[in-house]
Amino acid sequence: MAKNLVVGVDVGGTKILSCVIELGDKFKILSRVKKKTKPELGLEGVLERINQTITESIQESKINKKQIKAIGMGFPGTVDQAKGEVLMAANLGWKNFLLRPVLEKAFKIPVLVINDVNAGTYGEQQYGAARGFRDVAGVFWGTGVGGGLVIDGRVIEGAWHSAGEIGHICLNPDGPRCACGNNGCLEAYTGKAALTNQIYQEMKNGRPCSLEFSEENEQVTLKSSLISSAYLAGDPLVKEVVHQATRYLGVGMANIVNLLNPQCLVLGGGMIESMHKTLAPMIDEHMRRHLFPSTNVELRIAGLGDYAVVIGAGVLALAEGK
Amino acid sequence: MAKNLVVGVDVGGTKILSCVIELGDKFKILSRVKKKTKPELGLEGVLERINQTITESIQESKINKKQIKAIGMGFPGTVDQAKGEVLMAANLGWKNFLLRPVLEKAFKIPVLVINDVNAGTYGEQQYGAARGFRDVAGVFWGTGVGGGLVIDGRVIEGAWHSAGEIGHICLNPDGPRCACGNNGCLEAYTGKAALTNQIYQEMKNGRPCSLEFSEENEQVTLKSSLISSAYLAGDPLVKEVVHQATRYLGVGMANIVNLLNPQCLVLGGGMIESMHKTLAPMIDEHMRRHLFPSTNVELRIAGLGDYAVVIGAGVLALAEGK
Repeated sequence: MAKNLVVGVDVGGTKILSCVIELGDKFKILSRVKKKTKPELGLEGVLERINQTITESIQESKINKKQIKAIGMGFPGTVDQAKGEVLMAANLGWKNFLLRPVLEKAFKIPVLVINDVNAGTYGEQQYGAARGFRDVAGVFWGTGVGGGLVIDGRVIEGAWHSAGEIGHICLNPDGPRCACGNNGCLEAYTGKAALTNQIYQEMKNGRPCSLEFSEENEQVTLKSSLISSAYLAGDPLVKEVVHQATRYLGVGMANIVNLLNPQCLVLGGGMIESMHKTLAPMIDEHMRRHLFPSTNVELRIAGLGDYAVVIGAGVLALAEGK
Repeated sequence: MAKNLVVGVDVGGTKILSCVIELGDKFKILSRVKKKTKPELGLEGVLERINQTITESIQESKINKKQIKAIGMGFPGTVDQAKGEVLMAANLGWKNFLLRPVLEKAFKIPVLVINDVNAGTYGEQQYGAARGFRDVAGVFWGTGVGGGLVIDGRVIEGAWHSAGEIGHICLNPDGPRCACGNNGCLEAYTGKAALTNQIYQEMKNGRPCSLEFSEENEQVTLKSSLISSAYLAGDPLVKEVVHQATRYLGVGMANIVNLLNPQCLVLGGGMIESMHKTLAPMIDEHMRRHLFPSTNVELRIAGLGDYAVVIGAGVLALAEGK
């Protein structure tokens, strides 16, 4: 494979990561610039921050801008890939914003914008844990449960640009209320808000727990790092709540396998990164209990970490010549 | 579109349907031969019956066999499409049988074998209710709940050849036992065995019902026609049980939409054919209650009836030049 230079960008609710990447048989990160962002900056402010991050990453790479073939950007929300339009990004407060033309005007390089989780799944399929598999589902357990689908080597965007919403598979129509308005979504059982609430309710009922909720933060969702520290330190309540969540995650993943038969499921995200040695076998077992008899799947732990989104977006931008 | 001649075959557990079809902008059924079959005939017996049905349909069409470009066959079970191998057909008792070479030897025409529900979904996408849509999910409610997926105009077979097993999406890990061995599958709530059992249990508890269970048939699953007659005649117990099932069907369909975002959902099968005027709006409402906010889908009633499978298999056989 010829070597190609691209910029990969991962825009999040709190940070922007931009990397110049060399893509060949392997990938090589030539530069890495990370900047903080926040919705309070407003659309113009976030856009400026994105531009700065990209510009600095190109400068830092010492590559002549003219050698860079494309910019691929993963964005946290619903994206119309063909138009490069951010339809909805709740974290940032963006709605129906035509992002691609703005970036193409600024950088004079073809740009592709894609949902960040789709980009991450594609990155893992192209260069990460799922390399070599044509049909891959990505499941990322963090604040919520995000997902992406690659079928026959192609990212599935869906007619409404939100395919892969694994967190909103209903696992019980009489189940707990989800933030999306439905009942019994996977995320209503396993999202961090749900875990925090379950832990908090048990503590209010008198169960001991190493985590502390002050008056001010009792409504605040616990960070993955706090949950995982308490889990790894052996806190019985946290372990119980997390283990219960692995069951629902396994059932949700079995549903994906029964419906789509991917060869490989990639599991990643903040809740998995530090706890996968204990949790992945549990999730795998719960999943297998619900697989349709003739199916199977290989479960792999995400391998690219922070780079999955920038690589996925970069490869796709290059492939689409955008 | 040039006109092409193919044979389309629909092999079921109790009957075989073979048609010679002219495919162009529209389809034209040139002949139609239906024969009974049963698993007791054994593999050789069923095979002979298939051959007879195909042969007679060609004779009846008055078409010279040399003009027929391909034979497409929908088969009730798990099929490896590339090999033309029936991996498992529980109704017929077949396992790991390389069907395609046997038929190609007998007819000297390229043969394609595909799962029947996948063929039916493809037929509806090509010439039926979902014509004009690229991304389509088919949901067929009959004895069980079968499904098929067409994404970007291509049938999704899956790495384990059983993609589209919509009936085995888990809607509650603590739900009723399903025949597949799992708990809470859509089929465990909505399959005819489940409906029969629910009706029978209520009758044993003293609820009146127009349906009769004798000592001999109390274990026998009611036919769609019996359930629909009682339903259409206004039997309160049957209506209640069927309506409860529409809720689970709607939730299962919402899961497909949330995961894949098809433009169109085609709803068909024995339970839908006679009752769709009442049931489709209910199913649609239940489904919409569980859709992820940014998604949508068009629900259409299957339009090709008995011909969906023969047409879908025929078109695909022609397209693959097999």
